[in-house]
Amino acid sequence: MHNPVTVEVTRGPLVESRHRGLIAVVDADGSLVWSAGDVEAAVFPRSACKAMQALPLVESGAAEAYGFGDRELALACSSHNGEEGHADLAAAMLARAGRDVETLECGAHWSFDQATLIQQARAMAKPTALHNNCSGKHAGFVCACCHQGIEPAGYVGHGHDLQRQIRAAMEDLTGAVLGTDNCGTDGCSIPTYAVPLKGLAHGFAKMATGIGLAPGRARAARRLVDACMAEPWYVAGTGRACTRLMEIAPGRIFVKTGAEGVFCAAIPERGLGIALKCEDGTTRAAEAMVAAVLARFLGDEPEVAAMLAAFSRRSMRNWNGIHVGDVRVTDALFT
Amino acid sequence: MHNPVTVEVTRGPLVESRHRGLIAVVDADGSLVWSAGDVEAAVFPRSACKAMQALPLVESGAAEAYGFGDRELALACSSHNGEEGHADLAAAMLARAGRDVETLECGAHWSFDQATLIQQARAMAKPTALHNNCSGKHAGFVCACCHQGIEPAGYVGHGHDLQRQIRAAMEDLTGAVLGTDNCGTDGCSIPTYAVPLKGLAHGFAKMATGIGLAPGRARAARRLVDACMAEPWYVAGTGRACTRLMEIAPGRIFVKTGAEGVFCAAIPERGLGIALKCEDGTTRAAEAMVAAVLARFLGDEPEVAAMLAAFSRRSMRNWNGIHVGDVRVTDALFT
Repeated sequence: MHNPVTVEVTRGPLVESRHRGLIAVVDADGSLVWSAGDVEAAVFPRSACKAMQALPLVESGAAEAYGFGDRELALACSSHNGEEGHADLAAAMLARAGRDVETLECGAHWSFDQATLIQQARAMAKPTALHNNCSGKHAGFVCACCHQGIEPAGYVGHGHDLQRQIRAAMEDLTGAVLGTDNCGTDGCSIPTYAVPLKGLAHGFAKMATGIGLAPGRARAARRLVDACMAEPWYVAGTGRACTRLMEIAPGRIFVKTGAEGVFCAAIPERGLGIALKCEDGTTRAAEAMVAAVLARFLGDEPEVAAMLAAFSRRSMRNWNGIHVGDVRVTDALFT
Repeated sequence: MHNPVTVEVTRGPLVESRHRGLIAVVDADGSLVWSAGDVEAAVFPRSACKAMQALPLVESGAAEAYGFGDRELALACSSHNGEEGHADLAAAMLARAGRDVETLECGAHWSFDQATLIQQARAMAKPTALHNNCSGKHAGFVCACCHQGIEPAGYVGHGHDLQRQIRAAMEDLTGAVLGTDNCGTDGCSIPTYAVPLKGLAHGFAKMATGIGLAPGRARAARRLVDACMAEPWYVAGTGRACTRLMEIAPGRIFVKTGAEGVFCAAIPERGLGIALKCEDGTTRAAEAMVAAVLARFLGDEPEVAAMLAAFSRRSMRNWNGIHVGDVRVTDALFT
């Protein structure tokens, strides 16, 4: 099926570029509440499911044993900018398990955030694995292994015990079977599994409500969602969409982006999970879509809805600060 | 109409993201030789038409008067990385007209190229307008004004004499009427006009062959195309697609990218002009498409075609150097 055009990029009086999207809004019983495009399509959630991947850290008791609070748990669910506060906290988490940067298997990269990159280029020869946007998740992985007495070496591998635990949790949440036929390798080298978009949204509804989950998993899931909502800077960083969106309605909106135009979200008080992807993998479109969908389902709160709607329309300015066009959602978001 | 999926991005065994494209290959008589998608759609060429915008620089006699060779003309048609050699040559061009960076109206930005950006961050407090990817084009604009006795101040404005000259040349080349209803503002503040894709391709066939142009314009157009093919590093820079593609078949392929997923090209010996856009504005897809189209029309030269085909399929590796997927063109490029 053709996914509808959900986001337009204008320039002057015309539309310059168009993005197509697939969006699923699902309640905790798994019923589709609203959708656009092919919600049965298998989508790699990439980093958007980091909160799911952090479940073993909490369920195993590692987070409690190491004294992790909201910030550490938020960082374990994050795709961060690699700002100093992010890298330092990842190092501190590893230290609690008696480990350091050498145990991380995520690889190193310069920050994706230009301001941070410029600061890094001036301050260091090159970034370490602690600056990788996934370092918090990987520090959480290492801690989950160490607390359970599992050797962390090779923890990114498909056959490692930790990845088995993550896979089981994700199958429980999404209802999908995760095997080699839907498995790819993520940017940080761990397995990533393509899941029907509707199942992914259902998984986040279950994370936020606990409905359909065993009590221990329900508690762990809500603990992680609450930590992200309480410490949104640790989920992404300065100026980032995840951070800004969660700051709009503190404690009431959970959001997490993933590479290739994915966004997952939950509105715990409404019992809703949201999963969406821009067909072409573009972040600007995924950001506009998630804000518009959140606005739609928080429409009875005019102030919050207005801030979300404003976020869904981004003004583009050129190098001289002149307004040249907008990124805006289409009517497909309002049908 | 629905534009076809022309590029797929794979991860493991699955397609993760899809890009749609519109492609026109036109001969110098304006006949459509091959196409995909809606070639009548109005497309902002953005920087892909810089060689057209440089015509007044040559036609006015300014380039000759200031002693500009291939490098200066290539830089006037460029979207460069802001590497030292680019910024220095833009400054030298301005100096020939008795001007300096202060006359540039393009604004300043850090290099889009990460290696250059890191070097800049270490070497300078902040970039100047000379590092703007459009500084060569703007230096050419200033030179065209000064040589003609036109005050350059305000040269980016829609009503400035230089923009009138550019508009007339682009109407002659593309056959489109350029008015306020199809005019937007580009990243560097000059007007950009949306033109039917087919007309844009025809314009590049005319640039490369001179057919349908007055003798002076034909000479100027070929001079610019030849300069870009002779000095491809000055058209883009280290590692960039425009530079690498023109290096594959020196003197035989002209290519130029534009923002929001546009690529224009010409194969002078075949008398063909090419214009394409990725519907969603993504550069990785436009690069794959232009390489595949060039390979198609140079198919009787196996070595060149093989290098172009290889360029059209890009292997993606993660932070640990592991192969995770590919950017590849679809069968829509081979029908």
